[in-house]
Amino acid sequence: MNKKEEKGITVKKSENISEWYEQVCLKSDLVEFAVVKGTMVIKPKGYAIWEKIQSYFNEKINKPLGVKNAYFPLFIPESFFKKEAEHAKGFNPEVAWIDKELTKDGERLAIRPTSETIMYDSYSRWIRSYRDLPLKINQWCNIVRWETNTTKLFLRSREFLWQEGHCVYETEKECEKDTLKVIELYKKLSEDLLAMPVLIGKKTEKEKFAGAKHTYTIEAFMPDGKALQCGTSHNLGQSFAKSFGISFLGRDEKKHTPWQNSWGISTRLIGGLVMTHSDDKGLVLPPEVAENKLVIIPILFDKTKEKVIKKAKEIEKMLSVFNPLIDLSEEYSPGYKFSEYELQGIPLRIEIGPKDIEKKEVVIVRRDNGKKIAAKIKDLKRIIKEELKNMQKEMLERAKDKLYSNIVETKSKSEFKSAIKERKIAFTRFCGDPSCEKKIKEETGATSRCTPLNANKKITGDCPFCGKAAKTMIYFSKSY
Amino acid sequence: MNKKEEKGITVKKSENISEWYEQVCLKSDLVEFAVVKGTMVIKPKGYAIWEKIQSYFNEKINKPLGVKNAYFPLFIPESFFKKEAEHAKGFNPEVAWIDKELTKDGERLAIRPTSETIMYDSYSRWIRSYRDLPLKINQWCNIVRWETNTTKLFLRSREFLWQEGHCVYETEKECEKDTLKVIELYKKLSEDLLAMPVLIGKKTEKEKFAGAKHTYTIEAFMPDGKALQCGTSHNLGQSFAKSFGISFLGRDEKKHTPWQNSWGISTRLIGGLVMTHSDDKGLVLPPEVAENKLVIIPILFDKTKEKVIKKAKEIEKMLSVFNPLIDLSEEYSPGYKFSEYELQGIPLRIEIGPKDIEKKEVVIVRRDNGKKIAAKIKDLKRIIKEELKNMQKEMLERAKDKLYSNIVETKSKSEFKSAIKERKIAFTRFCGDPSCEKKIKEETGATSRCTPLNANKKITGDCPFCGKAAKTMIYFSKSY
Repeated sequence: MNKKEEKGITVKKSENISEWYEQVCLKSDLVEFAVVKGTMVIKPKGYAIWEKIQSYFNEKINKPLGVKNAYFPLFIPESFFKKEAEHAKGFNPEVAWIDKELTKDGERLAIRPTSETIMYDSYSRWIRSYRDLPLKINQWCNIVRWETNTTKLFLRSREFLWQEGHCVYETEKECEKDTLKVIELYKKLSEDLLAMPVLIGKKTEKEKFAGAKHTYTIEAFMPDGKALQCGTSHNLGQSFAKSFGISFLGRDEKKHTPWQNSWGISTRLIGGLVMTHSDDKGLVLPPEVAENKLVIIPILFDKTKEKVIKKAKEIEKMLSVFNPLIDLSEEYSPGYKFSEYELQGIPLRIEIGPKDIEKKEVVIVRRDNGKKIAAKIKDLKRIIKEELKNMQKEMLERAKDKLYSNIVETKSKSEFKSAIKERKIAFTRFCGDPSCEKKIKEETGATSRCTPLNANKKITGDCPFCGKAAKTMIYFSKSY
Repeated sequence: MNKKEEKGITVKKSENISEWYEQVCLKSDLVEFAVVKGTMVIKPKGYAIWEKIQSYFNEKINKPLGVKNAYFPLFIPESFFKKEAEHAKGFNPEVAWIDKELTKDGERLAIRPTSETIMYDSYSRWIRSYRDLPLKINQWCNIVRWETNTTKLFLRSREFLWQEGHCVYETEKECEKDTLKVIELYKKLSEDLLAMPVLIGKKTEKEKFAGAKHTYTIEAFMPDGKALQCGTSHNLGQSFAKSFGISFLGRDEKKHTPWQNSWGISTRLIGGLVMTHSDDKGLVLPPEVAENKLVIIPILFDKTKEKVIKKAKEIEKMLSVFNPLIDLSEEYSPGYKFSEYELQGIPLRIEIGPKDIEKKEVVIVRRDNGKKIAAKIKDLKRIIKEELKNMQKEMLERAKDKLYSNIVETKSKSEFKSAIKERKIAFTRFCGDPSCEKKIKEETGATSRCTPLNANKKITGDCPFCGKAAKTMIYFSKSY
C-alpha cells in the first residue's frame, strides 16, 4: 500500500533464509506483524491466497465427500479437555485461557487450540442410530496456541486460521478410507494449487496427534533443509467416542462405538508457498493462486504516450479474464515498475512500447524464470493462457526436482548423521520405538517425518540407531 | 440428524413467540445451545444460510466497491481501546479479557468485540499519501461480547460471526457516499436474499455507534412487536483517525486527516429470518437462501412401489439444478414425512404417487402458503423455477405488508404510548435530545429506531414529549 523506504529484498535467500523469508512476506504485502507478540495481520494479498485455498478445498469436500460446514464455539470448558487423557496431555502447555473473573461461578474456559472436544460433546447428542452416520462436518475458523517458542510469520503463530474436519463412521474401514482420501486431497491441493510438492505418509507413534490411533501427513521440504508439516489427517479410532460417550444403535439393533477421524490445513500453507518458490527479487506465486495473473506496463515516451496508453488499455480489456493490473503512472520508470511487480509476485508482465505496437506485438516476461516471449497481439489471449499453464506445471516440476534431489537413502548411523548435517532428508530403516526416536533427535536434531504410504512391505535389516529389527522405512529431517 | 422424541413445534407463534422461536431454531436443526452459557453451535443447516449471505455480500462489495478481504488478530491490547474515548466507554462493560497469567509482562489483552482499534493501528502505518486512498478492507470473523443480559439464539450471544468493513477516504463526501451505499446494500441483501423488509434510516445521537459521527441502520420488525437492528453503517468522521494518528499527504502536498467508515452485519440476520417467516409448523425459508429448494416424496404402495421410485428418481435427476432431497424411506408414512420437511423449511414439496404417474403429473406443495399445484412432469422444471420465484417475491410482499401495517403515525404523547403498548412502531415528531429520549425509554420501554433517510425536510410542530421544537420525524418501538 504505502511506498516503503527500502523497496526490494536486501538479503539473499541463499545467505540468510530466515531474514529473506521475513522480508519477502512483509515487502510483498502478504502479512505484517501485529502488535501482540506472536500474532499477525493477514493483509488482502495474503488473505486472497487463503480464499483460493478455501474455495478449492470446499469444492473437493462438500459435494464429493458429503462434508458440511458448520461453526462451533471459540470457548471450551476445561473439563472437556481432560476427558481424553492423551489429547489433554498433548495440548495442555499451549492453551490460552480466558480471564477467571468472567467465569467465577463455573469452570475455566479455553480459547480453542483445536475443536475435537467441543464438537464431540455435540456429536454425543446428535448421533443415535446408524442412520445418523456417517456424520461429516468441517469448520473454517481461527485457532489459538500460546506458543512459547519463537514465532514466525504464517509458519508458527499464536493465532492462525485453519479448517478442521471431524467425521464419524459406522465402521473402521469407512473411517480409514476417508482419512486416507483427505490426506490425498491435501497432497493434490498442495501440488495442483500451490505447486508445492510434498511427501505423503504416516507419522510414528511419537509424532502422531495426541489421542489419535494414527496420523497421516503431508510434508513439504523447505530450501533451508527443514521439513514443513503442511496438513494432517488423523484416524482417531474409538478413543474419543468412548471418552465423549458417542455411540449408535447399529443395524443389528445393538449399541456400538463409532470410528472417527479429524483433519486440518492452515494458513501455514501460505508460508510454505512463499519459501518454496520465491527468490531474491521477492514473491513468486504459482498462477493458480495469483489474484492478478499479469500486469501490463506500457513504456511511455512523450511523443507516443497517448497511442501506447490506448493500446495498453485495449489489451487490458482483452485480457480481463486474467484480472490484469495496469500501471499507467508516470512518476516511476519502467525498470522501477518491473522490480515492484516482481517483488509482488505477479506471474506475468506484459511490456508494450511504440516499437511493439508497430510490429503488432508485446513482450511477455515470466516471473518464475525471467523468460521473455514476443507475442503477436492477436494471439495474446491464447499465449497467456498457455504460458500460465506452463508456469504452473514447471514450478511444480522444479520444486519436485529439488525435493527428490534432497532425499538420501542412508544405511548406517554415520550416513544418517552426515545427511542431516548437510540438511538433507534421510530415508532410513527404523525400529519405530519412541525412545529410539527421542535419542535420534537429541543426537542429530532430526525428527521423523513419515513412512511412505506404499512402504508397508517387509523390511529386512536392523535399525541403524539401536540395532533392533527395523520395522519400517522412514524419512527423517530437521523441521519447523 | 437424530430423530427427536418430540418432533413438531409444540407451541404456537401467536401464543408464546419466545418459546416458539427457540423450538423452531432447535428443531429445524439450524443451531443448538453450546455448553458455555450464551454461546451456540451453528449447525450445518444454519451455517449454510450464513455461507449464502457471505457469498452474496462478497459479490456486492469486492469488485463493485473495491473492498478487499483481510484478517486481523483476535487479541487487542487494552491501550488501543482507550485511545478513542467514546468508543472505549461504549464497549468497556462487555469486553472479555484473556487470562492475566499469559500477559504477565505486558498489558491486558481483549478478545475482539469489534476491530476498529486494531485495524486503525495498522492503517496508521499503511497510509502515507492520497495515493494509498481509498483503503477499503473487510473481514469475516468471530466476535465476543460478554453479555450479562439474557442471551437468545442468533439474536444475542456471547460469540457470533459477522463481517466488518473498515474504509478510509480522502474526502468527507466519498466517505459519506460509501457509508450510505453500504446501508443500501444491506437493505437489498435483507430484502432480496432473506425476503425480510427493513426500515432504513439514521440513528439518533443517543443510539449511534460509540465513537461515530453518525450511524445508518436497517431495522426489521419482528412479529412480537420488537424491532431488530440488522445492520449498521457508521460514518466515523475523523475522530478515530485523529486518535490513531492516521494522516496522509494530500494532492496539495500538505498533511491531512482522512475520513473513515465502518459497517457490519452478523449471524443475527439468521434469527431475524427465522422469526419473520416461520410458522407453527416450523421453519419457512425463502428459496434464495434454501440449500435444498425442494424435496421429492414418492407415495409408496406395495404393488406400484418400484415404478413410483423409478419415476421419483428420474424427477430427482431432472431437477438436480434445484439440489433436491428425495425421501425413499419406508419406515415413515407420507404424512409424517410431509411434517418433517415442513419443519425443516424446504421451500417446495413434490408428491408423486401411482395415479400421478398415470396422468404424467406430480403435485407441488408450497411451504409458505400450502398452495397445491398439479404440474405436468414435462413442464416441471419450468414450473418449479417460476414457483420458487413467486414464493420469494410473495414472502417479501407479505412481510412488507405486515411491517407497514404496524407503523402508526402518532401526533401526541398519548397516541404514542398506546401505539407502543399495542407493540406497534410509532412514527413521531421528535426533538432529538438524548435526555428526552432517555425519558421516553423509562416511561414506555421504547427506543428510537431511526429517522428515514428521505425525512430531512423541514418539520413543523413540537416534540410531543418535551414540547421543544421537533427536529425530525422518527420511528420508535420496543426492540431486541
